[in-house]
Amino acid sequence: MTDRATHDPTELPGGDFFIDEVRREGLLEPPGTEAVPHDGTGRVELSFTVETGGDAPATERSVRVPPGVTVFDSASWNGIAIDSTCGGHGTCHKCRVRIEGPSPVSRHDLRTFTREQLDDGWRLACLVQATRDLRVDVPPLTTRPKAATVGVGRQVILRPALQKRYVELDEPTLADQRTDLDRLLAAIDDLAPTPDLHVLRRLPRVLREADFKVTAVIVDETLVDVEPGDTTGRRHAIAFDLGTTTVVATLLDVTTGTPLAVASMLNRQQPFGGDVITRISATMLDPRALDRLRAAAGETLAELAAHVCDEAGVDPAEVHEVALAGNATMTALALGIDPEPLGVAPFVMSTPQPPAVLASDLGLSLHPRARAYLFPALGAYVGGDIVAGMLATGMDRDKRTRLFIDVGTNCEIVLSDGERILSTAAPAGPAFEGGAIRCGMRAADGAVEVVKLVPDGDEPVVLSVIGDAEPRGLCGSGLVDAVSELVRVGLLDASGRFVPEERAAEIAPALADRLTKIGEERVFVLFRPHPDSKTDECVVLSQRDVRELQFAKAAISTGWTLLLEELGLEHRDVQQVLLAGSFGSYLSPASAIRIGLVPKLPVLRIVSAGNVAGEGAKMALLSVRERAGARTLLEEVTYVELSDRTDFNDRFVEQLSF
Amino acid sequence: MTDRATHDPTELPGGDFFIDEVRREGLLEPPGTEAVPHDGTGRVELSFTVETGGDAPATERSVRVPPGVTVFDSASWNGIAIDSTCGGHGTCHKCRVRIEGPSPVSRHDLRTFTREQLDDGWRLACLVQATRDLRVDVPPLTTRPKAATVGVGRQVILRPALQKRYVELDEPTLADQRTDLDRLLAAIDDLAPTPDLHVLRRLPRVLREADFKVTAVIVDETLVDVEPGDTTGRRHAIAFDLGTTTVVATLLDVTTGTPLAVASMLNRQQPFGGDVITRISATMLDPRALDRLRAAAGETLAELAAHVCDEAGVDPAEVHEVALAGNATMTALALGIDPEPLGVAPFVMSTPQPPAVLASDLGLSLHPRARAYLFPALGAYVGGDIVAGMLATGMDRDKRTRLFIDVGTNCEIVLSDGERILSTAAPAGPAFEGGAIRCGMRAADGAVEVVKLVPDGDEPVVLSVIGDAEPRGLCGSGLVDAVSELVRVGLLDASGRFVPEERAAEIAPALADRLTKIGEERVFVLFRPHPDSKTDECVVLSQRDVRELQFAKAAISTGWTLLLEELGLEHRDVQQVLLAGSFGSYLSPASAIRIGLVPKLPVLRIVSAGNVAGEGAKMALLSVRERAGARTLLEEVTYVELSDRTDFNDRFVEQLSF
Repeated sequence: MTDRATHDPTELPGGDFFIDEVRREGLLEPPGTEAVPHDGTGRVELSFTVETGGDAPATERSVRVPPGVTVFDSASWNGIAIDSTCGGHGTCHKCRVRIEGPSPVSRHDLRTFTREQLDDGWRLACLVQATRDLRVDVPPLTTRPKAATVGVGRQVILRPALQKRYVELDEPTLADQRTDLDRLLAAIDDLAPTPDLHVLRRLPRVLREADFKVTAVIVDETLVDVEPGDTTGRRHAIAFDLGTTTVVATLLDVTTGTPLAVASMLNRQQPFGGDVITRISATMLDPRALDRLRAAAGETLAELAAHVCDEAGVDPAEVHEVALAGNATMTALALGIDPEPLGVAPFVMSTPQPPAVLASDLGLSLHPRARAYLFPALGAYVGGDIVAGMLATGMDRDKRTRLFIDVGTNCEIVLSDGERILSTAAPAGPAFEGGAIRCGMRAADGAVEVVKLVPDGDEPVVLSVIGDAEPRGLCGSGLVDAVSELVRVGLLDASGRFVPEERAAEIAPALADRLTKIGEERVFVLFRPHPDSKTDECVVLSQRDVRELQFAKAAISTGWTLLLEELGLEHRDVQQVLLAGSFGSYLSPASAIRIGLVPKLPVLRIVSAGNVAGEGAKMALLSVRERAGARTLLEEVTYVELSDRTDFNDRFVEQLSF
Repeated sequence: MTDRATHDPTELPGGDFFIDEVRREGLLEPPGTEAVPHDGTGRVELSFTVETGGDAPATERSVRVPPGVTVFDSASWNGIAIDSTCGGHGTCHKCRVRIEGPSPVSRHDLRTFTREQLDDGWRLACLVQATRDLRVDVPPLTTRPKAATVGVGRQVILRPALQKRYVELDEPTLADQRTDLDRLLAAIDDLAPTPDLHVLRRLPRVLREADFKVTAVIVDETLVDVEPGDTTGRRHAIAFDLGTTTVVATLLDVTTGTPLAVASMLNRQQPFGGDVITRISATMLDPRALDRLRAAAGETLAELAAHVCDEAGVDPAEVHEVALAGNATMTALALGIDPEPLGVAPFVMSTPQPPAVLASDLGLSLHPRARAYLFPALGAYVGGDIVAGMLATGMDRDKRTRLFIDVGTNCEIVLSDGERILSTAAPAGPAFEGGAIRCGMRAADGAVEVVKLVPDGDEPVVLSVIGDAEPRGLCGSGLVDAVSELVRVGLLDASGRFVPEERAAEIAPALADRLTKIGEERVFVLFRPHPDSKTDECVVLSQRDVRELQFAKAAISTGWTLLLEELGLEHRDVQQVLLAGSFGSYLSPASAIRIGLVPKLPVLRIVSAGNVAGEGAKMALLSVRERAGARTLLEEVTYVELSDRTDFNDRFVEQLSF
């Protein structure tokens, strides 16, 4: 039992080699860490032959993964199903595959296969690390695995960290004095969880009151509870997208992957400032601010949790796990970790991978021992929300060259050419959130979100406004539209300056009268209230607004330009641009292209990805393998720091013009 | 860093085999689990050749250990020092030895040795499992390891779980944005601890306030704190012996193994009953009793901790670990685990190995994240105190045939023939604690602890009394002495009956008048107060007292008799009897032999071992390898349940006579 309780090292991938084999393979470096991979890329190729069992022919799939990833993960991440109930922990002995070429034999293989089978290349897929190109035969599935579509068209094979096992145990006798824990664990053949004190306190009573018919509740490798009777039908978890502005919670039935309820609200940390920098500053000015910010985050998460549980009629005590995706600062504040070093150069995180914590450490009142999974971060300004987003968009699974842009005050950019992945952060400033814009506002009722200019139409300015309201201001997408339309019709020149009035009269007479002045500043009037309207507030775009947007888009385009150069790519090489984040999703691709926020590409290559951070959080709850994928991203993605690039400023200036 | 944070499986002993090697060795079973070991015993033999470095010749030592134990542990448990700073976690790469014959090569070996060295048999001792007889060359030590003598003459090589590392880190720059944790862990070359949330909350501030000169505090594999400056000189831990009656605390400087302060007090659980059964019953009668018993245990431990810290001038917040040895019931109550199944047949524990807990889970207020190590138990009535005792007496390291007896209300018995180890528990009843004895009392002032009868001396009855007081009653050792002396002089016959008065007058005239009656019951007067003494209370031994002792000793001798039979041994085969426990240590070996409490052996073979549970707890704090040894004992020792032995009663009756 001790072996069970204290985790048996041999239960996990990786292992040892015999010296003669080492010599034959010329591996003096351990697997997964070969100096220079053969074909010059950072990856190894796995060619899967998937048997269907029926008359249908076997299907061939080849995937490329970082060296050291297990065959099981490589398959799982690419939607190739292999039998398994333990989820790749080496305990269920079900993930049988045939490997071509020499491959280490683990002691679990020795227990699982005959000498002939081992000879024939049969291995447990979760214990074979892909350290060189391999051919893998996958036998027909004995059980059809459940899968769900999450994120941007990602097929996720369901294998949640939250597992339940119903067991009916023999009652102890003088001839069978096994401890309660041994008795319980012996009845669970595919998992070997470690109990926590809470369970041991309850175990003796629950077992006896339930006549030794109980359900073990396991999260990852921990036995978190023992419930009387069979409760396997109820498995719940909550995915949180902890945004600086908005927080979203989704209650999931992890057995099916179905969302049971969704709720969102403003982050209660708002009073401390609208962006991460002001909140970090708050902790630097007031020693009590960190505790308050932590409490505010906790209250936000708790209120949302209560709301989704109530809406779905789920007892909060029946929620055994949560996953949280947030940027580095939001994650640090939620955990009560001093964020100061994130806010000042050289922008250092306390840790890339948050520690294993309880949901209660985040201020949540769910099951008392509910676990919390927090996404790791790539850097102070490319946080767990982006890692979650990469998971949801499959940035590391796709052979295409793709550019991921999360547009916001801090804009995160990820570029993958199918082999290498680079990421960076660009300080875009508050323009997209309506900050520092004369008539700027958040995307709320009355915000102009779409602008069309039709100089020769009866209605030269066409606006679409959020809600059934008169235009009150410009939100980010409206701002981008307005500027891009003015550039298109020629009222703004390439340098971002409004053209002289006489020039305006020539090219767009119907619009010329809207180009006027407020005080000394030139403005373009987008909306002039009807004389008998209750409001007399105009919605205008000022010259300074245009400059603000120019700076924002220049920061962003400088970011992805430098990443493209790092990989030696041209604009046209980018096969897909993913616009993420609450703002990015509303942006008009055409306008984004026209002002140069994204590379000049066919408009169909620009895709609104939506709230990918929240989708990533769901995936982490539905698949332990996706979680492993998030961890692998930390090694795979290279973080490019812009603030110490000597060429940044030159590039920035180049990018200012439209 | 993720690899660091989430423990890398390959950092531990054990590993995988190549199939051709498997075939050559004919190992289709994984190492450590071969069906029947070659020479019919449960052990494998390791022959160590220990180089001294100087001119002195190498010394030869051969030891026998259970299969699967690492070479490093095998050496460490037998006082053979091998270089190491990580303590056998596979992280420091210092424990270099040369193995004769084929042996797996771990990836750590690959990093540590040249191809030629590997060929020559060089391996890291902590990663080689002894699965068959091996010859091992141990090179001269590069550093002289500290050792301390603990327990019954055990030489323990000091390698505490509590480690400190002082580091001076480079400050981060834009060119070096490693996280605070990565930076810290990278500077600690021999350990790879996992941080807990508490540390991460403090880390950024402490690092910067201390100009990146800090001391990492590590307990086992957890980073529990980061302290400003160099605090490596202060490493403290507390060893607790949590007895049903008495609790003892020892504050240790784990750097040297020196006890800084010792304190003991009565267990605050006394009001709930004097023995484990009454306390278990209390929890069955009153649902709130478990919490109260848990609180009482916590208060007892906390008061002792405060006392020893105060006495040694150590800040309680500087105590980072505690170890606790207690019987199964005391351990369960201290953790708040329902003890009911321990008290009723079939006597089942919730778990043999208590979970990893914090000192605060035991009600202690030391360092907020101080860890607590609790000894595992072999059975409901052979608990962690006995496992600790076995460690302190080296029951599993000694080639001699030894019998370990912890005399008390519940009497634990362990027998080892140097290969196999058996244990059992005998219900001796309260006689030894003075319970159910007419003039019985605890070993306190006024208790008669030694009795000598000198029929032909001027003073026919010689008593020695605890403290400077008149005799008030009989404690356990006095009771055993009294009965054994009366048997010796012939006033008690072999059946335990007082001889008729006339017979008494014949054989011991000087004592005959002391053999009288109180009411209907015959008694022997041990002490008659002087006429002008303030007390007129006699101290007598009654016929019923003799019966009580007969039952107690019969239960015990039945226990070891059955164990001897199980191993096919005679009394004379026992080379040493260890009398343990507060009572056992005071027992007169001669009397114990005479009444048959221990086998009939030369008196020098009977040894008082003292408080071995407390000594075992100290060892657990001073050596992680000894801790591993305690875990191994669980697999090594066979627990023999007496209550379902059909022959128990017959044997019991046989054992009643003197």
